[in-house]
Amino acid sequence: MAMDKKLVEEITSMEVDFAQWYTDVVKKAELIDYSAVKGCMIIKPDGYAIWENIQHELDRRFKETGVQNVYMPMFIPESLLEKEKDHVEGFAPEVAWVTQGGLQPLQEKLCVRPTSETLFCDFYKGLIQSYRDLPKVYNQWCSVVRWEKETRPFLRSREFLWQEGHTVHATFEEAEERTVQMLNLYADFCEEFLAMPVVRGRKTEKEKFAGAEATYTIEALMHDGKALQSGTSHNFGDGFARAFGIQYTDKENHLQYAYQTSWGMTTRLIGAIIMVHGDNEGLVLPPKVAPTQVMVIPIQQKKEGVLEKANELCERLGRVARTKVDSSDKSPGWKFADCEMRGIPVRVEIGPKDIEAGKCVLVRRDTREKIECALDEVETKVTELLETIQKDMFQRAKDHRDAHIWDAKNYDELKDIAENKPGFIRAMWCEEQDCEDKIKAELAVTSRCMPFHDQERIAETCVCCGKPAKKLVYWGKAY
Amino acid sequence: MAMDKKLVEEITSMEVDFAQWYTDVVKKAELIDYSAVKGCMIIKPDGYAIWENIQHELDRRFKETGVQNVYMPMFIPESLLEKEKDHVEGFAPEVAWVTQGGLQPLQEKLCVRPTSETLFCDFYKGLIQSYRDLPKVYNQWCSVVRWEKETRPFLRSREFLWQEGHTVHATFEEAEERTVQMLNLYADFCEEFLAMPVVRGRKTEKEKFAGAEATYTIEALMHDGKALQSGTSHNFGDGFARAFGIQYTDKENHLQYAYQTSWGMTTRLIGAIIMVHGDNEGLVLPPKVAPTQVMVIPIQQKKEGVLEKANELCERLGRVARTKVDSSDKSPGWKFADCEMRGIPVRVEIGPKDIEAGKCVLVRRDTREKIECALDEVETKVTELLETIQKDMFQRAKDHRDAHIWDAKNYDELKDIAENKPGFIRAMWCEEQDCEDKIKAELAVTSRCMPFHDQERIAETCVCCGKPAKKLVYWGKAY
Repeated sequence: MAMDKKLVEEITSMEVDFAQWYTDVVKKAELIDYSAVKGCMIIKPDGYAIWENIQHELDRRFKETGVQNVYMPMFIPESLLEKEKDHVEGFAPEVAWVTQGGLQPLQEKLCVRPTSETLFCDFYKGLIQSYRDLPKVYNQWCSVVRWEKETRPFLRSREFLWQEGHTVHATFEEAEERTVQMLNLYADFCEEFLAMPVVRGRKTEKEKFAGAEATYTIEALMHDGKALQSGTSHNFGDGFARAFGIQYTDKENHLQYAYQTSWGMTTRLIGAIIMVHGDNEGLVLPPKVAPTQVMVIPIQQKKEGVLEKANELCERLGRVARTKVDSSDKSPGWKFADCEMRGIPVRVEIGPKDIEAGKCVLVRRDTREKIECALDEVETKVTELLETIQKDMFQRAKDHRDAHIWDAKNYDELKDIAENKPGFIRAMWCEEQDCEDKIKAELAVTSRCMPFHDQERIAETCVCCGKPAKKLVYWGKAY
Repeated sequence: MAMDKKLVEEITSMEVDFAQWYTDVVKKAELIDYSAVKGCMIIKPDGYAIWENIQHELDRRFKETGVQNVYMPMFIPESLLEKEKDHVEGFAPEVAWVTQGGLQPLQEKLCVRPTSETLFCDFYKGLIQSYRDLPKVYNQWCSVVRWEKETRPFLRSREFLWQEGHTVHATFEEAEERTVQMLNLYADFCEEFLAMPVVRGRKTEKEKFAGAEATYTIEALMHDGKALQSGTSHNFGDGFARAFGIQYTDKENHLQYAYQTSWGMTTRLIGAIIMVHGDNEGLVLPPKVAPTQVMVIPIQQKKEGVLEKANELCERLGRVARTKVDSSDKSPGWKFADCEMRGIPVRVEIGPKDIEAGKCVLVRRDTREKIECALDEVETKVTELLETIQKDMFQRAKDHRDAHIWDAKNYDELKDIAENKPGFIRAMWCEEQDCEDKIKAELAVTSRCMPFHDQERIAETCVCCGKPAKKLVYWGKAY
């Protein structure tokens, strides 16, 4: 039992040091490795397989709404990046610049895309002439680069993978509709597929995307009480269209500016999965996103018939779930710990006594509950169990989230909660940026969003200045 | 009929100017657009959908052989790129360099990956200790950058999409086996999925990959008689392992260097599809890779019941093939020409008279043959027709290829063929690079490969110097 102890002991407990626990899990569950390039990560097979599942499901949902995929160049000429004033101010400080191509210095330096609004605008300008050409609902899957100073695997790295949707519409209303549609698609995806409850809402002016008229966001609560922005959707109005000259002739033959949106989700979702569901034994993966859903572990595998039975179980279960068998020469104890570390939703234990009794043991990763199961019912039981785990994981995360939402009616309460109670803080706001700035500077919490579905007025006055309140805001410490 | 004429007339005939025909097709079939970055292309929805189908099928075939996907950083520090001498000499002249990150100059410049051997080696060095850690069979889907001077859409662009597999093995033999396995996988994929016959073989020393011990290739013949290298697979021996220090302890506890391979296919395959199958009406897509396999076109669609019937047909056919209906307000003639331009394998015409007669008309894109089909048999007939088209397209491409393979027994014959007969030239070679260099310099043909499956000795002496011949070589002009 020495080895399995060691495997588990190497993870720092999340209560002792959450940041270290997180780093331990991403490394020990073999999701990432560090690379020769500071701030850039290597996504290993088990990490990338999670991303493939996310991609596959999101892409399916996108295409149901009429999204078409394209691929744009990874480079943006400096002059193009500079065309929209707010946008370049937001991104220029954190881009990587290519200044040499082959053996020659470039005439104009190129940045590696931090996001592709400017490239899409330049493309759309040539593509769109008439109302017949609208809408355009394009998306790309790619990597982007932002030269961050502090980096953390999945959460903030200099290069990350994402999708970025960029759409063009004839009217502001249609753009707004698409913006909200995609935010809701993101939220449903997080809740249904990642078992991760989110708050849907609008960002304040201060926190919105560089160049947007409105930014919508989904915010999830991590196990340590910090918020993680998990997906955003932006309505650009006609701002980019005016900067880039994207115009179309309408049905009455008048020249009009077009309206645009963009929306994105990234590999940071993997960080969210870890911090919403993980525990001190390691990763806990919701069944729908888990690359391996079931691991069959033979007990006393050298005894006659055990390995055969384990392989047979693996084959049968393979028809209803993504199943593997661990027949390596490690001890069962080591395999149990390894399965737990990797967050595999269900492990199936089968040994000589089980075979004699015509049963096996199912063990849930999320609750560690052990369930006896007749061998001839295993497909049905495992299918049901995976569904139950998915549902329970969402409910548990939601209960945790709901138990960490605190109301603050005045500044003293806000201060007390910000300092002592991890989680979301609900508080009213006057909509003046001075108050938002003060709260951020003094209490180190930021406005996460003005929620869509929570219109309660918990006070009549701004939590900061005491003037009449206009909006309910969720505040929090954030990744 | 003015519009459909115009649509077709805008393509240059391939007999007049093949290069211009190619450019016209990629633009008019809406596969790509040019971007603000010289030499980088925008892959539009119809082009990207072809790539998605290629990706999906290749990835499925990879995974059947145990390949796991990962993601490596897009940047390579200069010192890492320089570790393997031949490799850096091959790539340094054509890489793009990042010299600034955020507002600061970088301490060490980073190149944007032209290929990722060096990154994988650096990763594997830390990952592999024991024979138990072998083999590693990793792959990534990403974009790479090579700062080419002359560029052409899909065939040669400064950024392109590809997959690059990188594997590590305990022995040379195992590495060799994987190298050949992947080349055969590529060849089967091209023949079965893209209906594109290929010659499988080995590159000469001169033409092999920078840093490889052996490079295997598949070579396809384009309609103009030029060859296109369509996929390569490299056996590195232990060369990279020695340069990077990738060692493992074997079962006898001895330290050994590991053996490696890499293999890749790119978006240039889309260029190959165009140039193998296309004609003067535009693109011709093999059914398996076609994003839309069937287009239903209503005739006199304003007459009662026609649109309903067309939509019903589309729905029924949607269950057996990727089907769309074109109910736009364009004329049928325009729609036919548009369908042909886009290379959609089958169009289904349905008008009032057809409905009355309980039939529709199927039109093959590849032969333009019209086939009457009873409405109640349409699913079966279309399914069969798609299979037939796939098979016929392969056979036609193979017949064309085989009719353009010429044998040269001596230099005069070689010169005559190189100057007058487009296609592959089979000729014997002494294995001296001087002869290879001379043929390239004087006749502008290069050695494409030494074939696996064609061991015929068409002469006893080298086609160039007359000394005893060792190998049969396929020569050709190449993209």
